[in-house]
Amino acid sequence: MNDSTTETVENDQSALQRAVHLSQQRMQANLGGPFGAVIMRDGVILAEGWNEVTSTNDPTAHAEVTAIRRACAAVNDFSLQGATLYTSCEPCPMCLASAYWARISRIVYANTREEAAAIGFDDAFIYDEMPKAPHERLIKMVHLPREDAQAAFAAWAAKTDKIAY
Amino acid sequence: MNDSTTETVENDQSALQRAVHLSQQRMQANLGGPFGAVIMRDGVILAEGWNEVTSTNDPTAHAEVTAIRRACAAVNDFSLQGATLYTSCEPCPMCLASAYWARISRIVYANTREEAAAIGFDDAFIYDEMPKAPHERLIKMVHLPREDAQAAFAAWAAKTDKIAY
Repeated sequence: MNDSTTETVENDQSALQRAVHLSQQRMQANLGGPFGAVIMRDGVILAEGWNEVTSTNDPTAHAEVTAIRRACAAVNDFSLQGATLYTSCEPCPMCLASAYWARISRIVYANTREEAAAIGFDDAFIYDEMPKAPHERLIKMVHLPREDAQAAFAAWAAKTDKIAY
Repeated sequence: MNDSTTETVENDQSALQRAVHLSQQRMQANLGGPFGAVIMRDGVILAEGWNEVTSTNDPTAHAEVTAIRRACAAVNDFSLQGATLYTSCEPCPMCLASAYWARISRIVYANTREEAAAIGFDDAFIYDEMPKAPHERLIKMVHLPREDAQAAFAAWAAKTDKIAY
């Protein structure tokens, strides 16, 4: 994990202010919940995102995920290494894990998961579910091992032209 | 969280087999890693997904997220309550949290996070990062509280025409 970024304190404040502005403006436009995000690398904004869950019927359309998708499309790469994710609220586990997969180097956030919980969002609840054993979670999880599934993993391991990510 | 589903043991086996088939077939077509998913409700497949990270330059395009997005589009709803997610591998934290947000009722999986780690995927590592305090994570996280961000949350709480999700 490369955590080197080049943003200044001024960049941090202006990008976070922009993320918060988006959270307020897009919510008032009835696009979704009060969440906004900006992705910056080397002083340049790569993409912006805002919550679009209810307006697009996509439960994964959180501000951060949307911004990550757009930033990757903008740079034509599945890696955002060296980039900073600015978000009006601490990322939920979905968005945080998305940031890991996208190789985001740094996250700057304003509100917390507890503040999100206080206005009705499940962020803190889902964080509590993550470390549990699969069979102890509120979503019922069933493990059915299969030889064909293990064969698919073995085929990946043996694949000579794979693109790792 | 409603965990009632109506799938039979036969449905479970055939849907999981289909998810595994997708994981193998789409990987061999070089669309991404060896992961497939199927979403079923009341015996009907709502959507299928497979890993498309490298072919679409979208680090969030895991099989489960893709299937959830397609299923929500198919039923025109951001909730998949009552549905079962079948996946060739235990969901990573991004996909698991997506399932919570989508109100998926049940998850059936074949391979495990440890088996994914053994062929080079970060699932287990990201699970280990989730419960850490933000400042202890490998991605550097900075908390900058702001009054405008808190005002946006207060505006959501006071909003009379909001759509909760």
